[in-house]
Amino acid sequence: MDDALIGRFAAIVGEKYAVRAGADIVPFVSEPRGLYGGVTPLVLRPGSVDEVSRIMALATETRTPVVPQGGNTGLVGGQMPDKSGGQIVLSLSRLNRIREIDTHSNTATVDAGVILETLQQAADQADRLYPLALASQGSCEIGGNLSSNAGGVGALAYGVARDLCLGLEVVLPTGEVLDDLRKLKKDNTGYDLKDLFIGAEGTLGVITAAVVKLFPKPKGREMAWIGLASPEAALALFGRANEAAGAGLTMFELAHRTPLEFAALHLPSPPCPIPLDYEWYVLMEISSGRSGEDARALIESILESALEDGVIEDAAIAANLSQARDFWQLRENLPEAQKPEGASIKHDISVPVAAIPAFIVRAAKAVESVSPGARVCCFGHMGDGNLHYNVSQPVGANPEAFLALYKPMNHAVHDVVRAMDGSISAEHGIGVLKRDELIATAPPVAIDLMRRIKSSFDPAGIMNPGKVI
Amino acid sequence: MDDALIGRFAAIVGEKYAVRAGADIVPFVSEPRGLYGGVTPLVLRPGSVDEVSRIMALATETRTPVVPQGGNTGLVGGQMPDKSGGQIVLSLSRLNRIREIDTHSNTATVDAGVILETLQQAADQADRLYPLALASQGSCEIGGNLSSNAGGVGALAYGVARDLCLGLEVVLPTGEVLDDLRKLKKDNTGYDLKDLFIGAEGTLGVITAAVVKLFPKPKGREMAWIGLASPEAALALFGRANEAAGAGLTMFELAHRTPLEFAALHLPSPPCPIPLDYEWYVLMEISSGRSGEDARALIESILESALEDGVIEDAAIAANLSQARDFWQLRENLPEAQKPEGASIKHDISVPVAAIPAFIVRAAKAVESVSPGARVCCFGHMGDGNLHYNVSQPVGANPEAFLALYKPMNHAVHDVVRAMDGSISAEHGIGVLKRDELIATAPPVAIDLMRRIKSSFDPAGIMNPGKVI
Repeated sequence: MDDALIGRFAAIVGEKYAVRAGADIVPFVSEPRGLYGGVTPLVLRPGSVDEVSRIMALATETRTPVVPQGGNTGLVGGQMPDKSGGQIVLSLSRLNRIREIDTHSNTATVDAGVILETLQQAADQADRLYPLALASQGSCEIGGNLSSNAGGVGALAYGVARDLCLGLEVVLPTGEVLDDLRKLKKDNTGYDLKDLFIGAEGTLGVITAAVVKLFPKPKGREMAWIGLASPEAALALFGRANEAAGAGLTMFELAHRTPLEFAALHLPSPPCPIPLDYEWYVLMEISSGRSGEDARALIESILESALEDGVIEDAAIAANLSQARDFWQLRENLPEAQKPEGASIKHDISVPVAAIPAFIVRAAKAVESVSPGARVCCFGHMGDGNLHYNVSQPVGANPEAFLALYKPMNHAVHDVVRAMDGSISAEHGIGVLKRDELIATAPPVAIDLMRRIKSSFDPAGIMNPGKVI
Repeated sequence: MDDALIGRFAAIVGEKYAVRAGADIVPFVSEPRGLYGGVTPLVLRPGSVDEVSRIMALATETRTPVVPQGGNTGLVGGQMPDKSGGQIVLSLSRLNRIREIDTHSNTATVDAGVILETLQQAADQADRLYPLALASQGSCEIGGNLSSNAGGVGALAYGVARDLCLGLEVVLPTGEVLDDLRKLKKDNTGYDLKDLFIGAEGTLGVITAAVVKLFPKPKGREMAWIGLASPEAALALFGRANEAAGAGLTMFELAHRTPLEFAALHLPSPPCPIPLDYEWYVLMEISSGRSGEDARALIESILESALEDGVIEDAAIAANLSQARDFWQLRENLPEAQKPEGASIKHDISVPVAAIPAFIVRAAKAVESVSPGARVCCFGHMGDGNLHYNVSQPVGANPEAFLALYKPMNHAVHDVVRAMDGSISAEHGIGVLKRDELIATAPPVAIDLMRRIKSSFDPAGIMNPGKVI
């Protein structure tokens, strides 16, 4: 890219918001896992949709590749420029206005750059709930949540980011603005454009704003750590809790003993509230729209009957809000607790909920065949069929030698996933990390349709090239 | 179409299932409203996905337009061939197998031709709920429900047909089969193809099977007819009920007095359970996953506090299941009750829930400006912002003269809808009925994107031509 072109782009946002080099540019070209550091001559930080539109029009005119970026928390490299130095980064973070909260329609209309936690808090202040909840919620942004169709914990009762979105504003590669910021639950006027941009990781257009759903705020929430003998028992408990609480079952996380032992060893606080004597654990939350007492009575009745019937072995209910936060903290610490155990190879998979127990058996065999002695750290959103199936190196093994098994390990685990009609990317997306595998293993007819969409929406190929497809 | 070509198509399904003429063909070329009777030389009734695939391959080879058809209950002409005699009808009704009900994953995998009521019953027998509920449920089919993204009453708590679908099997115009029959709630592997076919009314491909969500069956349901002074009061009641019951608020239907008076006059049974002394009425249902008593206590507490606070004027709770059926029957009879009052002009619109009261005021003025004395029959799914805003002719007016106002009336009402960021087709779709209006009034950039999708998925233009776009 020559200086004249860089100057034309910079002039759209003003020099102050055109980051060209040095320390200022670092946060935009490095990412959480340290895998996809890229190179860019320019990060543009527009302050309005009109500026985004003018940037894209100029990009189309000059065939300049553009990489949209939100809070830069993505785990698959979707928000990173490549190493060519020929791609510019388009940061949406300055578009950070909550345009409206409508408590009658139960919607919020927000700019793409609003931080998830900011929206959660604004909803809370309006006595509503925005239920999307992610580990990165303090820095990830709504536009990125939608572009990657984020999932997280709240998806069980409320759905993934896609399910929570009613309308979008999108700047197309040409700079045209698609204004579909509508608050409608029912709207059958032609093809569903919105859901194409959601989950497209910025390869079809730039999401600049969205209308999202809000919900009544639960009046009571109760959380329990539960010990069980097997994934089958967890599945039985899930069925019972679903039956008893329906939409009030707001969290159902599964964890094997291994990651909890790692947590006890390396991050002893907060401790596991029940002894590490069981093979499997569930962290379950029950919410009530009525009262705290109601949620308490409901979770107690579920756990009591499950104990009586031998479905579960042990359980501890959080005594207060601070303990509930500890319960969740322990679950959230599990990836961190793995680090001192050496190198790890991670998977973000989903299978039908009913297939979780069989998957766990078959995947363990697959892991063992690739790396005997490797230690499976299995935990995740069981109620959604979504496991973060992480594998730590064998004790005493060479980390590099273990990481050299990354691809065979992925393939072995993903083969099990595919055989069970599952997904090799449940909630993190494709980005760069899984692009080759997606193209190699998805049904060719699906890839063909995706390519047709890509080339008809972005014929110049300037929207986040090299990602997804 | 020459006889040789007709013979080639017929050979795929066998003569028995190739309907060519006479009385047998009538049910496939006439539709509920009698507006879109078409002409076809051939109705094909394939018995397998493979036959559908071979039909589409031959259609592509010979550039033969194909009109997919389910239960033929659509209200916008989407399932009808045109009058050219050059389009063949592809009936999916023989694909009517429920492939699997998975009570752990809470899914049903069903052929496109399964009748909605059949699926409802099968779910019920498995102690689950399939919540899609439509007036036509005794004859409409799952494939049509998805192709038209049907809404109905259950959408309030459970979502529209799109929200209820996890996976699809689709035969493309070329005959290729896209197998995406997955049971996954979380799956971020590339563009969302599924949601493109849903609501596309058969213009992009032929849906042959689907995975749909099932829910725990409520253990208690309580229904009440409620009298109120205004739509504002109904909105306040909706807020309270939503707050108190959350996902347990499973129906919130609004009706003005006029259609209820018509029902009392022309279809006196079942009667309105409260006097026709109020200006507005709400039919509300509260469900509980716990017990009938729980649902009863909840609906009573909502109604009591609303009465005390002057939000509502009167209410009657159904005493038993049979009375609850009568309550619903009265609501369902409202379109029928309009018929003896002469000609009517109908609208299927949605606006943000918060805008419902303002819409009702502004739309009434629009109606009056087009046809002074015309009687508005306003009722519908208020909780979804979706009203069936029907207009009966003025007393004593000439029906033909009134119907001649169809377009100006539509335009006047739809102008109000558009000014409020609403939808001119909330749940019935576009089909033939609203195609010209969609193209003329939707943002050109949206129409352009839809056309790009259409031409990249169906370059030969053989999939249900003349519909939607």
